[in-house]
Amino acid sequence: MKKSINRQWRLATRPVGAIKESDFEYREEPISSPEDGGVLVRNIYLSLDPTNRIWMTDSPQYMPPVELGEVMRGVAIGVVEESKNPNFQPGDLVSGLLGWQDYALVSSQKLLPLTKLPQPIPAPLTAFLGPLSFIIGCTAYFGLLDIGQPKAGETVVVSAAAGAVGSLVGQIAKIKGCRVVGITGSDEKCRWLREELGFDAAINYQTADLVTALAQSCPDGIDVYFDNVGGPILDAVLTQVNLFARIPLCGLISTYNAQEPVPGPYNYSQILMKRLRVQGFIVTDYLAQSGVAFREIGQWLQEGKIKYTLEMVEGLENAPQAILKLFNGDKNGKLVVKVSEEPS
Amino acid sequence: MKKSINRQWRLATRPVGAIKESDFEYREEPISSPEDGGVLVRNIYLSLDPTNRIWMTDSPQYMPPVELGEVMRGVAIGVVEESKNPNFQPGDLVSGLLGWQDYALVSSQKLLPLTKLPQPIPAPLTAFLGPLSFIIGCTAYFGLLDIGQPKAGETVVVSAAAGAVGSLVGQIAKIKGCRVVGITGSDEKCRWLREELGFDAAINYQTADLVTALAQSCPDGIDVYFDNVGGPILDAVLTQVNLFARIPLCGLISTYNAQEPVPGPYNYSQILMKRLRVQGFIVTDYLAQSGVAFREIGQWLQEGKIKYTLEMVEGLENAPQAILKLFNGDKNGKLVVKVSEEPS
Repeated sequence: MKKSINRQWRLATRPVGAIKESDFEYREEPISSPEDGGVLVRNIYLSLDPTNRIWMTDSPQYMPPVELGEVMRGVAIGVVEESKNPNFQPGDLVSGLLGWQDYALVSSQKLLPLTKLPQPIPAPLTAFLGPLSFIIGCTAYFGLLDIGQPKAGETVVVSAAAGAVGSLVGQIAKIKGCRVVGITGSDEKCRWLREELGFDAAINYQTADLVTALAQSCPDGIDVYFDNVGGPILDAVLTQVNLFARIPLCGLISTYNAQEPVPGPYNYSQILMKRLRVQGFIVTDYLAQSGVAFREIGQWLQEGKIKYTLEMVEGLENAPQAILKLFNGDKNGKLVVKVSEEPS
Repeated sequence: MKKSINRQWRLATRPVGAIKESDFEYREEPISSPEDGGVLVRNIYLSLDPTNRIWMTDSPQYMPPVELGEVMRGVAIGVVEESKNPNFQPGDLVSGLLGWQDYALVSSQKLLPLTKLPQPIPAPLTAFLGPLSFIIGCTAYFGLLDIGQPKAGETVVVSAAAGAVGSLVGQIAKIKGCRVVGITGSDEKCRWLREELGFDAAINYQTADLVTALAQSCPDGIDVYFDNVGGPILDAVLTQVNLFARIPLCGLISTYNAQEPVPGPYNYSQILMKRLRVQGFIVTDYLAQSGVAFREIGQWLQEGKIKYTLEMVEGLENAPQAILKLFNGDKNGKLVVKVSEEPS
């Protein structure tokens, strides 16, 4: 049943340090009908991702920041309720930058296109928030394979390894025949990586001496380091890299909340000494190639070679509180807010 | 006329901060004859290079460090005086890691092979210390073309631009149709880069506001930054790079004398935001391909498309004092010590 009120979370203040719930402002708006070429989408699942923190600042970044007073940007899955665009029919399941709200009115000039979920829709629909989402699946797939270029027998290390991207990176690296070592923040997550996902080793950075632990877990050195975090973990990895190692730079979550300028790694000179390739990438660069990734990831999912977990938070009203979990390590798997029910 | 005494400079202490003359110890030794398979070389020209500073430390690096008490390592050009190796005849002109000494006794197990200078020998012989030396020519050629991959019309920025490598990088980039901007340490060097070498612009980092100057000199942004220095200049460049820019990391001379750990650039996150590729390289990785570079550079020299300058210091006795010039900006072009006369 269509509601008449669109609940929204808008960006109220740019966070200084950690995100606070008060950085978001609650608003209610009437729900309008789409203009010509546009569609009205009811959001079902809202994805919360570390990159949201980047969008909340106005420092230089890979997309325009969210403006103050604007609906908070976020990837979501939804269902088309009304369409004035011949490419979309009511009932179509779609994903895109639908924002922190119940309903998204998508005009034809959106920054990222609205895409229909591929048919047939596998159950559960939530796979489209995990390995089959553009932001997770393509990030892991292209970051590891295109930028990291691992070869069978090489050692791949991934940080934030129990996160949505990290856990997928590790599993793809295993499929490709690599030794895989994950770095994460609790013994329970280490256990999950080793026992459930098949990582060869997992390191709890909260308790381990990282340099020693990496040396023990990577007896042949490190050939690919998929970096989600930057900071001291990167510095520890740089002591153990092999000649010509590749470092796909996917994220720097350790620095996103910093209030002072954060320097690059102290072992930066190892890039020279070990002839490393450090290469940044943003998943949006791979939009045109996403089909390749989804076909292969979809097959691995069907074959049971890839697992994922979701941490589902009920209710749009809880989004500002839920996003804090991204930064305090207090979550397991992909963080998702359930906004409304899946169509039956 | 062959001398009977071999003067040597040996590494006495590992420098703390800037190199001091007292880090080297003077020794005199008798000159021996080569063993089977070896040759005795009389050094003519000794090359002084920033990488010498790296070899003097015992921190992790791309070659074993020079041991305390060992003859200081250095690239030189010399003439074979005695040979017990069928590949070398007395009178052959050679180059290699011949060290800071009058005579080098080269056994067949040297770290880098002794190579004969290619025939015919162009005049002057000193070209083999500049654009036709492995350490200068191949560093500039492969670092720019293989790692930097500049395309015609792109903007290439090079630091330490009036140095032996930097000035060659800029000229090769001009030959390849790029806009070339050099960063150097004096107005006189800026003038030389613009008026003599044809750089499109040159910036004196001692007096300019670097970010502003780079923005003005690079109206279309920076596509390739050939980094010889690291430090604040790298940070300034990172504010002006284009998406997908390449940063061949050739040297970090700004950090070699540091006594405290030096962090990477404060704008490290731009590697992610701008999808940069930062890639270290060491010229020794290109040994097998050096012929390609020398053929092309040799042709450019003949055609007058490449110029170089040498700063010649007379006498091996002055080497410890001369190397200080590498770090205080007090030199023009490739720094060379004349050890003995060229064969007539």
